[in-house]
Amino acid sequence: MAKPTQGGPKHAVRATRTAGRQMRSRLLNAASDLFKERGLAGVSIGDIAAAADAFPSQITYYFRTKEALFVEAACRDVLYAGRAAEEAAARAETTRQYTKALVDSVMHADALPFFAEALTLTRRRQDLAPLIERTIARLHAEGWRAYEGQVKAHGWRSRLDPETSARRFWAIALGVALEGYATGRGTEELAAEMLRVLDAQADPNPSEQRLKLVAGGSQKNSSDPETLS
Amino acid sequence: MAKPTQGGPKHAVRATRTAGRQMRSRLLNAASDLFKERGLAGVSIGDIAAAADAFPSQITYYFRTKEALFVEAACRDVLYAGRAAEEAAARAETTRQYTKALVDSVMHADALPFFAEALTLTRRRQDLAPLIERTIARLHAEGWRAYEGQVKAHGWRSRLDPETSARRFWAIALGVALEGYATGRGTEELAAEMLRVLDAQADPNPSEQRLKLVAGGSQKNSSDPETLS
Repeated sequence: MAKPTQGGPKHAVRATRTAGRQMRSRLLNAASDLFKERGLAGVSIGDIAAAADAFPSQITYYFRTKEALFVEAACRDVLYAGRAAEEAAARAETTRQYTKALVDSVMHADALPFFAEALTLTRRRQDLAPLIERTIARLHAEGWRAYEGQVKAHGWRSRLDPETSARRFWAIALGVALEGYATGRGTEELAAEMLRVLDAQADPNPSEQRLKLVAGGSQKNSSDPETLS
Repeated sequence: MAKPTQGGPKHAVRATRTAGRQMRSRLLNAASDLFKERGLAGVSIGDIAAAADAFPSQITYYFRTKEALFVEAACRDVLYAGRAAEEAAARAETTRQYTKALVDSVMHADALPFFAEALTLTRRRQDLAPLIERTIARLHAEGWRAYEGQVKAHGWRSRLDPETSARRFWAIALGVALEGYATGRGTEELAAEMLRVLDAQADPNPSEQRLKLVAGGSQKNSSDPETLS
């Protein structure tokens, strides 16, 4: 919406804006790789500039501080991880398959420990809280809309409303990742622990059956070969 | 079990050991206060020594590094918070009261964000992982035994086994605290969010009713005045 300034032609402004977006994106990519490998304290602005073939002043121009770049990169990554998980789960036929695909995808990405570190940082840097706030709201909203769409498409029954399901999914994902990475667990173990702890989404059949029994009719077999626990 | 060395009398060794324990405890107390206020990066070994009226060399003697002291203080605090929560919940009459008392107690303590920071730190300091591992195992085991005792004493019915309940409780507590502190939430909001996300423990009555209906008899009224959502 910005008008070209000083009489410059529109296309030049657009070109500049595009170049700016590309540089921003390149800096975020380089920062994400380095921060995930070494953490906030292990990376300098100079390291990121070198990796992105940019000048340190470009980092401070686009992001102001290393901490702000850290939080923005972590937020971007966790949103990508959430979308990748929804794509991985999109063809699930049952809530159990859906949950398992989501959990596997999220736990095999390395976005969660990165985001957890950003959350820890932001607790003492409340100037960075608004981006975290928007990111969590988007994670919840995107998760909940995707799940709601699946529930409607398949006629699944769920004990939890989709919004609470999404909030629970991300709270448990963060808690399990935080515990698991601290104790050196592998991603398979993290996924298994998350499925165990999620329970309600991972194992909706008993209550589904009960609901149907109470409602007076069920065609479902009571032994589910996919039972996890 | 250590024998007095160099022929010193036993009581002198015991006195030294007691003095050592007291100094350790004093250093942990001072460290806990300072770390909770300012975080790992905001506190030096010198600050802690000054606050505990000790020498910096005593900190390195007992704990080796600032990071090891941070993790030990955070582990001790979260175990205390777990026990305080069990005490706060001990007189609950229903699973809902029990869960609410636990959640309120844990979310009003400041041990969780401190422990979350220790978990984030330990991810890159795997030499400190064994203490974290033991602490999480104790948190789970103490929570699960306390809950199991209550379930037996009151004849509560629970959809989850006590061990899974305890693991879920702490994973959700960590995830909710991590999100909530990053976005500047107050402890009341954290407790409300945790109760919402926990759901199964906070609201076991619908499935209890279904179980009883399936089993063929219920004296329970289907409208529960305590329903949360």
